[in-house]
Amino acid sequence: MDQLIKYMTDFLDLVPPQEALRSLISNLPDPIFSDSLIPSVDSIGRVVSSDIISPYCLPNFQRSSVDGYALLSKDTFGASDNMPTYLEIAGEVHMGKDNNLAILSGQTVLIHTGGMVPANADAVIMIEDTQLVGNFELEIRKAIAPGENLIAKGEEIGSSVTVITAGTSIRSVEIGGLMAIGIMEIPVRTKPRIGIISSGDEIILPGSTLSIGKINDVNSYLLASLISKWGGEPVIFGIVQDNLQELISVARNAHENCDMVVFTAGSSVSQRDVTSQAISSLGKPGVLVHGVNLRPGKPTILANCSGKPVIGLPGNPVSAYVTANLFVAPLIKYLLGVKEEYKLPTVRAILSLNIPSQAGREDWVPVKFNTSNNEKMATPVFAKSNFIFSLVGADGLIRIEPDQTGLEAGNVVEIFMFE
Amino acid sequence: MDQLIKYMTDFLDLVPPQEALRSLISNLPDPIFSDSLIPSVDSIGRVVSSDIISPYCLPNFQRSSVDGYALLSKDTFGASDNMPTYLEIAGEVHMGKDNNLAILSGQTVLIHTGGMVPANADAVIMIEDTQLVGNFELEIRKAIAPGENLIAKGEEIGSSVTVITAGTSIRSVEIGGLMAIGIMEIPVRTKPRIGIISSGDEIILPGSTLSIGKINDVNSYLLASLISKWGGEPVIFGIVQDNLQELISVARNAHENCDMVVFTAGSSVSQRDVTSQAISSLGKPGVLVHGVNLRPGKPTILANCSGKPVIGLPGNPVSAYVTANLFVAPLIKYLLGVKEEYKLPTVRAILSLNIPSQAGREDWVPVKFNTSNNEKMATPVFAKSNFIFSLVGADGLIRIEPDQTGLEAGNVVEIFMFE
Repeated sequence: MDQLIKYMTDFLDLVPPQEALRSLISNLPDPIFSDSLIPSVDSIGRVVSSDIISPYCLPNFQRSSVDGYALLSKDTFGASDNMPTYLEIAGEVHMGKDNNLAILSGQTVLIHTGGMVPANADAVIMIEDTQLVGNFELEIRKAIAPGENLIAKGEEIGSSVTVITAGTSIRSVEIGGLMAIGIMEIPVRTKPRIGIISSGDEIILPGSTLSIGKINDVNSYLLASLISKWGGEPVIFGIVQDNLQELISVARNAHENCDMVVFTAGSSVSQRDVTSQAISSLGKPGVLVHGVNLRPGKPTILANCSGKPVIGLPGNPVSAYVTANLFVAPLIKYLLGVKEEYKLPTVRAILSLNIPSQAGREDWVPVKFNTSNNEKMATPVFAKSNFIFSLVGADGLIRIEPDQTGLEAGNVVEIFMFE
Repeated sequence: MDQLIKYMTDFLDLVPPQEALRSLISNLPDPIFSDSLIPSVDSIGRVVSSDIISPYCLPNFQRSSVDGYALLSKDTFGASDNMPTYLEIAGEVHMGKDNNLAILSGQTVLIHTGGMVPANADAVIMIEDTQLVGNFELEIRKAIAPGENLIAKGEEIGSSVTVITAGTSIRSVEIGGLMAIGIMEIPVRTKPRIGIISSGDEIILPGSTLSIGKINDVNSYLLASLISKWGGEPVIFGIVQDNLQELISVARNAHENCDMVVFTAGSSVSQRDVTSQAISSLGKPGVLVHGVNLRPGKPTILANCSGKPVIGLPGNPVSAYVTANLFVAPLIKYLLGVKEEYKLPTVRAILSLNIPSQAGREDWVPVKFNTSNNEKMATPVFAKSNFIFSLVGADGLIRIEPDQTGLEAGNVVEIFMFE
């Protein structure tokens, strides 16, 4: 009965997920970063720890952007079909060479895309706009403006400018940019260590014999895989029995050695209660949010224990997946000091079936994506309980906003695809 | 002049990108797969090489989905507020234990979420729907249907059923599923080796001194990073001078030792010409597509050389990025035999500026994403040439369809975000 009363009071004031996350983050101290130097080519997904400055400008010489002839633009002024201009072909620019070529008024040189434009030339005419007259004379029938078809020195980026700011997550294009300016190593923030504790008398290590009444630990590995993807370093602390003293002891070890701790417990009230007590033992101010207005994921716990975020996720894998995406992912970005938080990309599709939902609560529903008669369709995957295999059979999740009482077949929905 | 004529004829018949890709794939032999066994927890992004079969059913015992009391449903038939039923509390189901508990008609046992329902019980009543009468009697005021609040043995998945089919890319949720059925190792397809050859007299190894007239090799590393992300194994063959014999020699080595070869050459006609000749030397039928109706990326070459795909990408990094996404990514999926090809997720935003485009051609334009007055906006990143740093400054690309003559400010666009 005490448990029931506790259960009821715990959930009287359910907090919307975004508000819950904000209240935790605003309660946390600013993260302290450490960093290390790694090869730029291995830095994908890592977060830059200080601004990257260009050591030189790009291009570091005046380049042609076409195949053609470099010239002095003023030599072409007034040229037309009726009054062509003729220039002397004084040579050819060889790719990759600092030719030290100089041209005089009345002269031109053959140049290829990317070639170095002679210092006193100020434009390039495209080969298609010229006519050879013999081997050494070029006929031009149009005027070329100064700067036409060339890329000025420093036009891409200047020297000593910030090209990547601290807090940027490295993507493939940044690796390309770093190579362009010859920066072979960059300082990146150390991955935050995220401790994972799984608890429950019924949970066993996957791979051991599954006796009746037991289930394999799914969440430790599901979470570890997600945490790696989000830029954290998962540290699995194993399975703890539903015993408060044992759980507190493992939790203290995780809390001391990690930057954040994630609990995943069974779904019974007593299991959740033990988790909540273990979290409370880890330091002040302790539990800030106990219960979010979310399905699945209602019994989520958010805590700040001595300055470190500690999260209690529901035990079933679908709830754990949803709440990890909503809370663990942004907290890892917070711990890494990632500057920009983008909207997640989605696939838009037409819902094939009605989905009921309770107004005032945010719902996440797994869907299967398919194309039917050239229409992109999303079909909800319904299951009596929140099975991991209902996610394996799905392609992503759709969100039902708190102000909606469900979605109707034919509605356009946005699918957050699994990765 | 010969070069000019060749240039003009090469591009008389530009093929739409999707048609170009289809014509190459339909010309290739079926891929031959090899595989290896790896730990399931390390398999994210890998492609399963044979069907994964469940060794047992889930759950492998009848579980309660709530905190409550297990009972024989027929004992509750007729129970109401006016006519409560009373059952004897015969004990408690302990989590994770095969209790061998049996209840008789008129009896019930306390059970927690996930607990094993006694064999002859056929339903669970939620604790909220009961009243304790003393310590050993339970009052029930509603009828419970057979099967209510329990998960039948095998309800999640049966034993010996295919849970993941060959050709599936492993996501986090599959790692969870594999743990649930205790499959600790899975057979995955060997990553296809993708040879990368960069050519051009002006290209040098990044990190060496950048003398005037030279530029660093960006594309080898940009492509390597993308290829890794797409599930291939990049093999960088280095920088080759614009010399046909030298290029053929490196190309043959790459072609022999890899499953696919990607060239990235300079943008001048003569550089592209040398690449095309080198590709032609690698085997029949050779070049199938030379020039696609795409900007940037027009001078792309697609070839089948002795049964292996060989691709010539334009030299500038933006073109290389776009064409790698359109051709290299799907070819890696083809070589891996990935079953399903999903639409890429996007972020929808409002275009802030007009973008002109030529009708009949597919255009890809880098954009910066930002939120302004709560509206998601996409602002095109214009640059005179296709600089890598215009991608570094962008968040993704938008596609202008061939039947559009541009996009107008205020249009809703879909951003393919960089990763």
